[in-house]
Amino acid sequence: MSVTAPAGFEAAGVAVGLKSSGKPDVAVVVNRGPLKVGAAVFTSNRAKANPILWSEQAIADGVVEAIVLNSGGANCFTGSFGFQTTHQTAEKTAELLGAGAGDVLVCSTGLIGTGDEVFRAKVLHGVEEGIAALSGDGGEAASLAIMTTDSRPKRVVHSEDGWTIGGMAKGAGMLAPGLATMLVVLTTDAVLDSAEADAALRHATRVSFDRLDSDGCMSTNDQVSLLVSGASGIRPQAEAFREALAAVCFDLAEQLQSDAEGASHDIRIEVTHAASEDEAVDVGRSVARNNLFKAAIFGNDPNWGRVLAAIGTTTARFDPYDVDVWMNGVRVCTAGGPDRPREDVDLTPRATDLVIDLKAGDATAVILTNDLTHEYVHENSAYSS
Amino acid sequence: MSVTAPAGFEAAGVAVGLKSSGKPDVAVVVNRGPLKVGAAVFTSNRAKANPILWSEQAIADGVVEAIVLNSGGANCFTGSFGFQTTHQTAEKTAELLGAGAGDVLVCSTGLIGTGDEVFRAKVLHGVEEGIAALSGDGGEAASLAIMTTDSRPKRVVHSEDGWTIGGMAKGAGMLAPGLATMLVVLTTDAVLDSAEADAALRHATRVSFDRLDSDGCMSTNDQVSLLVSGASGIRPQAEAFREALAAVCFDLAEQLQSDAEGASHDIRIEVTHAASEDEAVDVGRSVARNNLFKAAIFGNDPNWGRVLAAIGTTTARFDPYDVDVWMNGVRVCTAGGPDRPREDVDLTPRATDLVIDLKAGDATAVILTNDLTHEYVHENSAYSS
Repeated sequence: MSVTAPAGFEAAGVAVGLKSSGKPDVAVVVNRGPLKVGAAVFTSNRAKANPILWSEQAIADGVVEAIVLNSGGANCFTGSFGFQTTHQTAEKTAELLGAGAGDVLVCSTGLIGTGDEVFRAKVLHGVEEGIAALSGDGGEAASLAIMTTDSRPKRVVHSEDGWTIGGMAKGAGMLAPGLATMLVVLTTDAVLDSAEADAALRHATRVSFDRLDSDGCMSTNDQVSLLVSGASGIRPQAEAFREALAAVCFDLAEQLQSDAEGASHDIRIEVTHAASEDEAVDVGRSVARNNLFKAAIFGNDPNWGRVLAAIGTTTARFDPYDVDVWMNGVRVCTAGGPDRPREDVDLTPRATDLVIDLKAGDATAVILTNDLTHEYVHENSAYSS
Repeated sequence: MSVTAPAGFEAAGVAVGLKSSGKPDVAVVVNRGPLKVGAAVFTSNRAKANPILWSEQAIADGVVEAIVLNSGGANCFTGSFGFQTTHQTAEKTAELLGAGAGDVLVCSTGLIGTGDEVFRAKVLHGVEEGIAALSGDGGEAASLAIMTTDSRPKRVVHSEDGWTIGGMAKGAGMLAPGLATMLVVLTTDAVLDSAEADAALRHATRVSFDRLDSDGCMSTNDQVSLLVSGASGIRPQAEAFREALAAVCFDLAEQLQSDAEGASHDIRIEVTHAASEDEAVDVGRSVARNNLFKAAIFGNDPNWGRVLAAIGTTTARFDPYDVDVWMNGVRVCTAGGPDRPREDVDLTPRATDLVIDLKAGDATAVILTNDLTHEYVHENSAYSS
């Protein structure tokens, strides 16, 4: 069900030929509830796609009535023609729904530089087809239409005390912080105002998508949107909603991690006893971005020296000669020297658990990443994306 | 000839069993000239190997009489025992040469965590053997003894106006700035004082090894040392020596690049019209560290969208929608949009030329990197290093 699980939402996914495979490529999600509240966070990449430039303006007033997403073309670095395409997408959607264009968010994903007249015509056609196909159980179809190199759709539903959160995500690579690189739509029938929605979304993405760092590469088209229908009539406790939304986002982040292009290990890096949470994140990220470490994990090699070499490049406060490192429960390094033998570590499972104890404070952070594999190189060298 | 090309130097390379292959693994270079001037720069990684901790102290007075280098073990994260090993290495060398231990630099390379009693015994034996084998044409043997996964030795000689610079380097991966990760020994018979040697070396490494970024991974054992014998009796013009040393270092950097583990393309990234040289370096480095771009080059795919997505993550001053990108002489992107068709770009040659025109100022920088290949993943997953 994903985005149509909460009351007050309709969605659709249709195929209009943007994907050469003929698979669904345009998704529409419409808020039919009494509230039209929305919030969104965007890629921090300065090279932003046209839909990002549009949606940043559209979200400013905290009102969202619909969101249109297409795969099969990023509409990034396509100039003013590309921006007009996004604008026309919002206008066409608004016209058919009887809404204002400024209340329509737009997302695109696919190859950068794709956004010509053929692209525009197909997207606009997709809007017509999508709106005609809207239904209260269209969440599944929508989640299929946003897939690119994903091997499976990513969906989540969470219910609590009479209100529900639903979500869908796409992304299978180019996953890096600020945000992880992907499109996500979250819906809820809880009653929230736009400031509450914005605060909850920023907290949730900070501790989930922002800590997913599959390959260190940040996309130009990231967008995580939250649509609030209020159709349950229930106003949740702020803390309960905040934590539920964070859990939903972490669930989607793990789904993205486990489907990352070519990966053979899902690596959970837990940095403990850091002097601050930001420093814990920095330390975890330095390991997540170290190609030598990631290649070693692919080779089932518990190479803790590469962990220490990676964290030594950060400015976080800790003594590099007093760090403990665990791999899959085995302490391979203690106080800056070898501990248990490498042979004790079994890295054959896909789930890989790395713990780095900095002995410098009380803060902790978890970063999710993947290994560096032949398949990653193959998929990212053989296909343009 | 490498390090023994300038007058006043002797060198040797011997095999003492540190490498399981039985190949040479200990090198000694001795300054026999009237001057005993030295300078060195070290990895900026906070996780420093014991030889780095030793050599940082030894170089403080600007006097160097000899340098001992071993492959087959990094002596990093081996605790106080490892530091004593380095100390004993310097003392044994000094004793045999009739010098002071504080005038002996030490370098090690190999697997982190390797530095036990067997390692110590072999290294000390290597010092004895090496000093017994010293000769005025031992530069070639020395350059062979510092190799690890290198497929070939890296050597350079430059002569000018009666003085000569020689050099040798090892490194075939884990090449990243601050320094590129490798061991380098440079020698000269020019007459320089220690301040001049230090200034020239810092300039040379800044524009050469610091701009070689093969895989973004910084080692724990980097060291670039310059030994000055003064045996030519000639004092070069400061600017001439500075430029010659920079050219020698750039030559070695290119040799390291062309032998980087598993690479199939040597990528030269030239960033032009940046607002400052530092920003040009930042922009070039963001591309050199982008796995998606590097995988695309391996696949001979002129994917300029990945270049723009990479540089958009920097804080350098430029307009992301007014950037031009050339690949191998073809302008594939202009003013933030597509230009010449991708098919016009021939990426089959190993030498790959990327130019990024930021249109933001007058500064330029060149960064050297490699593509991300199946062989890179294979070599770094199948073998511990």
